[in-house]
Amino acid sequence: MYSSKDIQDILNQKFSEVKWVCEPIGLYAPISYVLSLGGKRVRPTLALMATNLFSDNIIDALNLAIGVEVYHNFTLLHDDIMDKAPLRRNKPTVHIKWNENTAILSGDAMLIKAYEYVGKVSPENLSKVLPIFSKTALEVCEGQQMDMDFEDRTAVSEDEYLEMIRLKTAVLLAGSLKMGALIGGANEDDAKYLYDFGINIGLAFQLMDDLLDVYGNPESFGKQIGGDILCNKKTYLLINAINESDDSQKDALDYWLQQDGAENPHAKIQAVKELYNQIGVKNLCEQKMEQYYEAAMNCLSKVSVSQEKKYNLTTLAQQLMYREV
Amino acid sequence: MYSSKDIQDILNQKFSEVKWVCEPIGLYAPISYVLSLGGKRVRPTLALMATNLFSDNIIDALNLAIGVEVYHNFTLLHDDIMDKAPLRRNKPTVHIKWNENTAILSGDAMLIKAYEYVGKVSPENLSKVLPIFSKTALEVCEGQQMDMDFEDRTAVSEDEYLEMIRLKTAVLLAGSLKMGALIGGANEDDAKYLYDFGINIGLAFQLMDDLLDVYGNPESFGKQIGGDILCNKKTYLLINAINESDDSQKDALDYWLQQDGAENPHAKIQAVKELYNQIGVKNLCEQKMEQYYEAAMNCLSKVSVSQEKKYNLTTLAQQLMYREV
Repeated sequence: MYSSKDIQDILNQKFSEVKWVCEPIGLYAPISYVLSLGGKRVRPTLALMATNLFSDNIIDALNLAIGVEVYHNFTLLHDDIMDKAPLRRNKPTVHIKWNENTAILSGDAMLIKAYEYVGKVSPENLSKVLPIFSKTALEVCEGQQMDMDFEDRTAVSEDEYLEMIRLKTAVLLAGSLKMGALIGGANEDDAKYLYDFGINIGLAFQLMDDLLDVYGNPESFGKQIGGDILCNKKTYLLINAINESDDSQKDALDYWLQQDGAENPHAKIQAVKELYNQIGVKNLCEQKMEQYYEAAMNCLSKVSVSQEKKYNLTTLAQQLMYREV
Repeated sequence: MYSSKDIQDILNQKFSEVKWVCEPIGLYAPISYVLSLGGKRVRPTLALMATNLFSDNIIDALNLAIGVEVYHNFTLLHDDIMDKAPLRRNKPTVHIKWNENTAILSGDAMLIKAYEYVGKVSPENLSKVLPIFSKTALEVCEGQQMDMDFEDRTAVSEDEYLEMIRLKTAVLLAGSLKMGALIGGANEDDAKYLYDFGINIGLAFQLMDDLLDVYGNPESFGKQIGGDILCNKKTYLLINAINESDDSQKDALDYWLQQDGAENPHAKIQAVKELYNQIGVKNLCEQKMEQYYEAAMNCLSKVSVSQEKKYNLTTLAQQLMYREV
């Protein structure tokens, strides 16, 4: 059994060994750049921890781990083009630093690279994990499409929103756990419990992201506070604010939704935040997060390995959930 | 042994059975649209014919065949965004019919779908073909990157150009043949000869495309005649025209390269075509094509199956080469 620190070290070592830049430079330099921006490497860590629940041989899972991390960063690269995002992890995005064509093509190459790593999994495990990887990867695209579709719609229900974040965010955490578990030799039941653990953690994690956008610490959040409010993003908070508001609150909310955030961003953010507080959606969101977190822990408890072995995953889940608000 | 017609029928049947459109429609409708535009299905046909050289069981190869065709159409979709192409097979491109974000995301989903189909190949074949598929897919991206890099350069050598078209066009034909052969049970030598057959046919095919752009029949070519000339594309013809021209021809060529094709497209096309004829690059290009075609046939002759069994591939190669000029 490895400690969390061991797993991070093994992962960092493996990442540092990969030579990302080859010819033509124009194709590969952006890939190296994106992967060098860091991030918490949550998905590969989950994959390795899941393998390690069932086996001390995590070598085979390392290729999967690299694959899921490269895949995740590919989605960020292409999402940033679609969202016209200028910054990612406080650095210029690829389509800004290079150009849009480079961002499209390097992203494509990253997706292929992700599959190349997953493909290095030993043949006996490959036929188990490859269909899960493809299914998961497609679902993430479906989630991104739903997210874009929601921008053009006037109303989005809470259920639709939860389904969108399940696809866009949760399935990759869940899939990483399930694939890792299967490589470790888990049975189908345990693999399924870990998948469901990942879905619930993923949903809680995304709700926390919605909260942090409004209530986060500007210094530690890494993105602009209030970004979702400025672009009227239909988050869990906004959807519930619309549903739960009384008539006067609804009028006030409608007023601010019609104000272009560019003119006086601070005023819009403050006003909407004040309405969120009045309507009580912060509390609602925290309750929903807690529900998912408990459901996650319940799923993890069903996995047929000792409580002791689950320590790494329990701790990681806590860290993901209780980020600074 | 199947006839060419049998193989086409089996392939069309398989394509028609696939349900491309699911939810969310916004993601999958463009995929169905792109695949419905047709095309000659050259790559999947090559894959199936290669399998059929060695085995009458081509069921397993059908998934590979779908995978390579979906992959090829994915590259067309994303290349059309990068080239800002309004039409593909005389129909609006996805980024025109929908929008650019849809074209990016649906393309991503197509690439995943391509892998999903390749992943359906039986486990004993999967570990043989998956690394070839990934390597080939990456090389196609490298070729596209080189093609874009060449646009910004003043000079491109003949060798650099041939390497670019090898990657952008030839490796996918070659890879389809090699993967198909391996699924059929070919030994490494035969798989390699078929790969080299594909590379040579691919290079000849692309040179024919360069020729058709200038000398093609406007009705059967499907693209605008002279498109490469108007945008000063560094094709085999232009690169050799620059290399082989005398001083006065070079001055005339330089003059026309500096003319914006938009103002008087017909004059530019006629003048450059006239220079090509004077310099003799049509002839040069035809000679090079013939060399590659002969090299291809030489590779095919080394494959250790009867001449009779090679009939389908020989005929297909002829059809690809001797399109109407």
